[in-house]
Amino acid sequence: MITGKNNPKIKYVSQLQKSAQARADNGLFVVEGVRLTREVPAELLSEVFVSESFSQKTSDFTEIAAVCEKAGISCETVTDDIFAKMSDTKNPQGILATVRQPAWSFDDITASGGAVLVLEEIQDPGNLGTILRSSEAAGLNGIIMAGCADIFNPKVVRSTMGSIFRVPFCFTDNIEKTIALLHGRGYSVYAAHLGGTDLYESDIQKKAAFLIGNEGRGLKDATSAAADRLIKIPMSGQVESLNASIAATLLAYEWCRRNL
Amino acid sequence: MITGKNNPKIKYVSQLQKSAQARADNGLFVVEGVRLTREVPAELLSEVFVSESFSQKTSDFTEIAAVCEKAGISCETVTDDIFAKMSDTKNPQGILATVRQPAWSFDDITASGGAVLVLEEIQDPGNLGTILRSSEAAGLNGIIMAGCADIFNPKVVRSTMGSIFRVPFCFTDNIEKTIALLHGRGYSVYAAHLGGTDLYESDIQKKAAFLIGNEGRGLKDATSAAADRLIKIPMSGQVESLNASIAATLLAYEWCRRNL
Repeated sequence: MITGKNNPKIKYVSQLQKSAQARADNGLFVVEGVRLTREVPAELLSEVFVSESFSQKTSDFTEIAAVCEKAGISCETVTDDIFAKMSDTKNPQGILATVRQPAWSFDDITASGGAVLVLEEIQDPGNLGTILRSSEAAGLNGIIMAGCADIFNPKVVRSTMGSIFRVPFCFTDNIEKTIALLHGRGYSVYAAHLGGTDLYESDIQKKAAFLIGNEGRGLKDATSAAADRLIKIPMSGQVESLNASIAATLLAYEWCRRNL
Repeated sequence: MITGKNNPKIKYVSQLQKSAQARADNGLFVVEGVRLTREVPAELLSEVFVSESFSQKTSDFTEIAAVCEKAGISCETVTDDIFAKMSDTKNPQGILATVRQPAWSFDDITASGGAVLVLEEIQDPGNLGTILRSSEAAGLNGIIMAGCADIFNPKVVRSTMGSIFRVPFCFTDNIEKTIALLHGRGYSVYAAHLGGTDLYESDIQKKAAFLIGNEGRGLKDATSAAADRLIKIPMSGQVESLNASIAATLLAYEWCRRNL
């Protein structure tokens, strides 16, 4: 059992929790809780840590021990105090894992058609995680991100509810080039935009890419200009815009309703 | 200018920020920022506080001074340090207002038909606020809450983006009785439920009430049993459920798409 808080493994996990740079440098991130740890694909699981209290909960601990055995790794026990320091949550469940970052390519996401989301500068971790969760539910093929919050941030990971392991995603630093590549693959590209035509009165192709912009500023003008069409989700009352994860989900589900 | 942090007004505002009980006892809550303060109906505005720095920003301050004049109240300046203590945000804009709690009745919400949401134990402030924002956008007639987070919590208020002043809402401590009252007024009552029929293949009456349950547990069995029909939002992949604000919005917009 690890009892010293200066143990290098403890510092390492804390860094992975706090720093996007540490996550990128090590190609790792952290998941917490029984449920999320159980959803980690065996080949991605790196290390598992449990608190002393957790190790005494027979059924949960037995389940996690089996997950570790399947992945061929050991499960380390730490004191409750140290676990609290390693955890990103106020009320930790007492189980966390370091996980190798999954990687998909633009080809993985676009090879089989269907619909994709292209996210520009989504900054709120809860929004980003919720968009992944909704995208899996709506049957999208993947997500392409430009300048978004770190998808391996603990808050993002939590709010994906496990979809981070199942929805293919990749990154771009040139969204206009990405749109050109999507066009080259036969995608129709729709920008979520307050100046667009009503979503519910618009034709949407089955092979569709939806562009969603930043929470406060929306899409950049150059990004919107590269789309085939601007689409607006109709809004009653005096509402000026919808939450970004709500807008993304409404587009995804409208595509889903018409195509799946 | 208020310069002492023991000034009773400062303590009073801090209590309103932190304590649901203090908000209920005083019938007040707090809004922050230029945009939200501007959206407060004049008859609800109680007091306005600005930081010293804010009072030196001519155009914003002039606008807020006009808001105060219209409401017939004064605007108090406090030092930046004291404002930081009064604020609920990390990077305060330097303007906040105490506001009388708006009140609507069940009759207000149900008199003109249309659709309403009935929320059971929604606990996350961000979800509750987002549901209000989406409900206004989807053209719903109002929201009835049973055992939810305090709607006047600063995080809820922020995430409504002003809809808290425009979407009628009321409270119930007996949701089954509320459902009976809705039936008595001719509403069809639909429960969001994993065991329901596909939303997109279900008839939905124009006069509709949608029941949405707690983030983790969903609706109580007795609540679902009181509905006319269980409705499920279809989900692909291995997703077990959707975020509560996402589910509420998808139901609201599907009603909106068919009826507005």
